[in-house]
Amino acid sequence: MADDDALFEKGLPIRREVLGADYVDASLEKADDFMMAFQRITTSWAWGMAWGDPTLDRKTRSIINLAMLTALGKIPEVKLHVKGALNNGVSVDEIRATLSHAAAYCGIPAALDAFKAAHEVLIAEGAIKAKK
Amino acid sequence: MADDDALFEKGLPIRREVLGADYVDASLEKADDFMMAFQRITTSWAWGMAWGDPTLDRKTRSIINLAMLTALGKIPEVKLHVKGALNNGVSVDEIRATLSHAAAYCGIPAALDAFKAAHEVLIAEGAIKAKK
Amino acid sequence: MADDDALFEKGLPIRREVLGADYVDASLEKADDFMMAFQRITTSWAWGMAWGDPTLDRKTRSIINLAMLTALGKIPEVKLHVKGALNNGVSVDEIRATLSHAAAYCGIPAALDAFKAAHEVLIAEGAIKAKK
Amino acid sequence: MADDDALFEKGLPIRREVLGADYVDASLEKADDFMMAFQRITTSWAWGMAWGDPTLDRKTRSIINLAMLTALGKIPEVKLHVKGALNNGVSVDEIRATLSHAAAYCGIPAALDAFKAAHEVLIAEGAIKAKK
Amino acid sequence: MADDDALFEKGLPIRREVLGADYVDASLEKADDFMMAFQRITTSWAWGMAWGDPTLDRKTRSIINLAMLTALGKIPEVKLHVKGALNNGVSVDEIRATLSHAAAYCGIPAALDAFKAAHEVLIAEGAIKAKK
Amino acid sequence: MADDDALFEKGLPIRREVLGADYVDASLEKADDFMMAFQRITTSWAWGMAWGDPTLDRKTRSIINLAMLTALGKIPEVKLHVKGALNNGVSVDEIRATLSHAAAYCGIPAALDAFKAAHEVLIAEGAIKAKK
Repeated sequence: MADDDALFEKGLPIRREVLGADYVDASLEKADDFMMAFQRITTSWAWGMAWGDPTLDRKTRSIINLAMLTALGKIPEVKLHVKGALNNGVSVDEIRATLSHAAAYCGIPAALDAFKAAHEVLIAEGAIKAKK
Repeated sequence: MADDDALFEKGLPIRREVLGADYVDASLEKADDFMMAFQRITTSWAWGMAWGDPTLDRKTRSIINLAMLTALGKIPEVKLHVKGALNNGVSVDEIRATLSHAAAYCGIPAALDAFKAAHEVLIAEGAIKAKK
Repeated sequence: MADDDALFEKGLPIRREVLGADYVDASLEKADDFMMAFQRITTSWAWGMAWGDPTLDRKTRSIINLAMLTALGKIPEVKLHVKGALNNGVSVDEIRATLSHAAAYCGIPAALDAFKAAHEVLIAEGAIKAKK
Repeated sequence: MADDDALFEKGLPIRREVLGADYVDASLEKADDFMMAFQRITTSWAWGMAWGDPTLDRKTRSIINLAMLTALGKIPEVKLHVKGALNNGVSVDEIRATLSHAAAYCGIPAALDAFKAAHEVLIAEGAIKAKK
Repeated sequence: MADDDALFEKGLPIRREVLGADYVDASLEKADDFMMAFQRITTSWAWGMAWGDPTLDRKTRSIINLAMLTALGKIPEVKLHVKGALNNGVSVDEIRATLSHAAAYCGIPAALDAFKAAHEVLIAEGAIKAKK
Repeated sequence: MADDDALFEKGLPIRREVLGADYVDASLEKADDFMMAFQRITTSWAWGMAWGDPTLDRKTRSIINLAMLTALGKIPEVKLHVKGALNNGVSVDEIRATLSHAAAYCGIPAALDAFKAAHEVLIAEGAIKAKK
């Protein structure tokens, strides 16, 4: 039994619900020993410890993540969490407002990266229609 | 009339309500031409453009800011927005949960700076009692 | 009428002159509501407020941007502003010197990303010839 | 029993050995509920998960931290880990070489902050003598 | 003779002219072996390699530095380079315009730190008068 | 003779040994005047000055770089230095432990980028086998 088993077991179902069971199960299944080290850290710490605390609801955590990942400049994670935000009931307008809010604090180049990444996912997920 | 007058006028009352009228009025009054350039930028863009959009409520924007400013490592702004968060109805537990959430995404040294800064303001504002 | 109309109208022609009218017009035309939020912020704030202030000439602002975007690690924006720098009369040697300057302050990995991005644009724009 | 108990119990003795038992015990004892959230995160994740893995020895981890915290610009943590580095057998010359190495990758302003912080701790700890 | 002697000798007089001979000589004189490692790096690379290249004039390099150090969040270096900027003929208005420009790209918290630091130096240097 | 000739000559053989002679020679050979400015800075400063100092061994410097480049978010450089780390005798397990260590300090999104980049190189280099 690993030291983080309790957190891993707590985080896994939350991660599957927010990011999609197929995506999460595939990430775990294809992980070799090297990548499993990362899979355990993110599942236990981000999903078990952070998301597992009911003090903030999931919709609020999704909004936090969009702004925080824009600040950190982690664009692949922005994309992942746009999907998660839609699953957690964040509207397209709320995503737009969150990234506009982040623009004022993180600067325009950081916001550009996040807007483009979010737009791409929103089109792909059918949440907005591509302009003709 | 300056080009950003409409945004400035929209942002000023929101900024006064969130950060406190005394603090904001003093910042503007003591500002010379040099600092007034910054005062206009922050009032127009952060408060008029971002906070002035009703799509997200103020409590949510306060929570976003605590996490985003932790990511950016801007500790004096974290302090200012802990005060603002209390004014906007964010509880001490929600502040704690927001910074714990940020720890997983921004790393432990960023979280340490934010926890210490928030703790100092929460004691000063009487939101938590100093441990004997 | 939107609150930032005056700044948007001020910024738009400057943005078109620096980045090219075709590029800017296409960005605006293809923008749906979601992306238009970003288009307004960048046109009004970066181009209307910042670039619209005549205190610094455009050549100096282009040089600032190359160094500042290297510091921020925003490589697609570095590419855009290498084009803008050429339009604003910055020479290839001045671009090289700006990025070498940035290397000392931002570190070698940040400079590597910027040198590679700038080189790619300079070749594409015909400002330097590809080495045989 | 909390979900992170196993990691916390694993990390606590390592943290006490590296940073000093007095410092760590005082941090824990003075922590109220708000700060205890951070204490658990750092003890479990930094000390239990990361430092608790024997694959890298403690001296190497101390050297990593000096460079990585310079990159992150977290100066109070640099100070803490200069102390830890001395406890883990890193020599003054090795600290100097680590920060010189970091200068090339993180840039000169980041290195300046780290050199000044390390120097202050090295004098305070008696590891180098103040120049007359 | 050290490997970086040529760069060090090239950089030293430039550094003395821009930052002030008294400040630079004192930094070198008080430096012990530990701090001399940093003194050589900054003098050789920032001042010899970067500033020593005549392709960009000193006034332009000072303006670059104000924006780039704002992006990097290195506030003690911003202060140093506000002094250097005044020595290199940058006007108070140009400093204000540079930091306003940086605000749009680096975000408002980064600009706040830089504006406050610059203002403090400009008052101390007598470049602007304290508002009564 | 350029001012950094001594450092360039010192750094070049070290760079060739760590990153591979073919890769380094090709980088230098294809470099035009523009890119040669960068080639000289990295060879002289990073490889001549930093790596050329025998106070830290090459294996330790490789481990430092993996963590420091994760903190800086410079993923193409992470890839380059995973190769260098293998050349310098760092094991796959030590790379995994270094990136797990970095996760605690730099946050999970920074670690994700580094884990994915390292994994890709380790597969390509045959250091780990692709999972079927």
